[in-house]
Amino acid sequence: MEPFKIHILGCGSALPTSRHNASSQVVELRDKMFMIDCGEGTQLQMRRSHIRFTKVGHIFISHLHGDHCFGLIGLISTFGLLGRTARLHIYATKELGPMLQAQLDLFCDRLGYEVEFHPIDTRQQQVIYEDRSLTVSTIPLEHRLPTCGFLFQEKPTAPHIRKEKIDFYRIPISQIGNIKAGADWTTEDGKVVPNHQLVYPAETLRSYAYCSDTRYMPDLGQRIRGVTALYHESTYADDNLLMAEKYFHSTARQAALVARDAQARQLILGHYSSRYEDENILLDEARQVFESTILADENMVVNL
Amino acid sequence: MEPFKIHILGCGSALPTSRHNASSQVVELRDKMFMIDCGEGTQLQMRRSHIRFTKVGHIFISHLHGDHCFGLIGLISTFGLLGRTARLHIYATKELGPMLQAQLDLFCDRLGYEVEFHPIDTRQQQVIYEDRSLTVSTIPLEHRLPTCGFLFQEKPTAPHIRKEKIDFYRIPISQIGNIKAGADWTTEDGKVVPNHQLVYPAETLRSYAYCSDTRYMPDLGQRIRGVTALYHESTYADDNLLMAEKYFHSTARQAALVARDAQARQLILGHYSSRYEDENILLDEARQVFESTILADENMVVNL
Repeated sequence: MEPFKIHILGCGSALPTSRHNASSQVVELRDKMFMIDCGEGTQLQMRRSHIRFTKVGHIFISHLHGDHCFGLIGLISTFGLLGRTARLHIYATKELGPMLQAQLDLFCDRLGYEVEFHPIDTRQQQVIYEDRSLTVSTIPLEHRLPTCGFLFQEKPTAPHIRKEKIDFYRIPISQIGNIKAGADWTTEDGKVVPNHQLVYPAETLRSYAYCSDTRYMPDLGQRIRGVTALYHESTYADDNLLMAEKYFHSTARQAALVARDAQARQLILGHYSSRYEDENILLDEARQVFESTILADENMVVNL
Repeated sequence: MEPFKIHILGCGSALPTSRHNASSQVVELRDKMFMIDCGEGTQLQMRRSHIRFTKVGHIFISHLHGDHCFGLIGLISTFGLLGRTARLHIYATKELGPMLQAQLDLFCDRLGYEVEFHPIDTRQQQVIYEDRSLTVSTIPLEHRLPTCGFLFQEKPTAPHIRKEKIDFYRIPISQIGNIKAGADWTTEDGKVVPNHQLVYPAETLRSYAYCSDTRYMPDLGQRIRGVTALYHESTYADDNLLMAEKYFHSTARQAALVARDAQARQLILGHYSSRYEDENILLDEARQVFESTILADENMVVNL
């Protein structure tokens, strides 16, 4: 299988601590890198995670709280100093557009590449990026200002040819494309060999949902049903449920309810409040609802 | 003596590395903290240096390159989250004013304190801040855009009363203020006791010059003559003299020439190019000209 990895660069919340950086992740799929959120210090975390700066072509910002976007201008600036020429695409709510342009004008004189801004509508679940390997869609969330998550979905790949069968039936190379596309094969004596005997099935399609920041949304699980891995914010444990409600955040138990409803294979917790010295209280709480839960941590890699 | 300390928070240059953070320092004098420059990640470095966020009331920005100011909005935002109410003063060239206001409008809704911006003229050597303990002056520098350093100078303190003499001559408490201010004492039998027998002299006045970023300025040493400690950028060693000249930076040898001309007590090198894995090449080069040189490093404290 092609690699489909999540690199955690930061999983703290608004107040930075020496344990956790501000939010940022990199999704790696088939040799491409996609960044989600870019809190202050993200470029340094990229270095620590040994992520090649040139590989990142698209950055998706969930919302305009500082701990999710203050690292953007530093990253853009550093890309320029490193001689980047490839266009960089940035997706965020429209308010970031003029700010980004003003920052580029003031701080990034003679940048050697273009930055293209794509305004997104956080109220719609829609595809905002697509290539031959995957789609990226918005996931409307409910926070104190317009916010969305992002759903990364693999596209179907061609099935794998069973070479021994091709040799056995002496199928010419010119027909391989048809067979990958699903065609059967008819031998010279008229026998039909069904397609499924000529190929191994393609891998199961994987997907990743990033949901931060949001208050608990009881219908969220349904909307991302079948997702392979879910990152869901768990700023608090249930001991601070009132704080979660007040500030439109979630508790670990609520994150687990979403994962359970989504029938996800794995839940990754993050966006921890700085008040938790030890996040195992969050982990234990979530696992009571959804066993397959892990704690995000800086420079951790999750393989899907 | 009252503490006069320099806390080094970051001493790297434009490209962040895992060894050095972007530029920032905190000058501590008599229970007050003054920040100089605020590159990305400064707020985290403050935590690592155990500097109390509430103590910092004034931030001086030398110039508007990102590695000297991209941490500002994150710091302002965090101060707000921590419940700050005291006004924060920011000094920088006028171009930062509108950018700062736009950032406050977009990212710092309902900030509980005021941010006051003070535009500075980097071409003049003039006092931009003064209280009863010290003055802060600009030091014009020569970089690729308007830039100045900052000179922190202690103000004279009162001399210390020699208690045994006061007791011996039975000088009433009401006269202590006069004696601290320099008055002699005349005894009942008309003998004049000169002031210097009644007091210990006040401490020598200390000063600190921060000079980054700049190309080598042969007259700089004269202008800060007698400074106690000098931080001077040494982005390169002499092996990259042409790079230094091209980008308006200095070499370690040039930094040492300035320290020698200033008759400084100590030179602190910093703003190292990421190309130097080991900065001892810079240290050795500087010490050939000016022996009392040290290398800045993150979370280091220099006592003046």
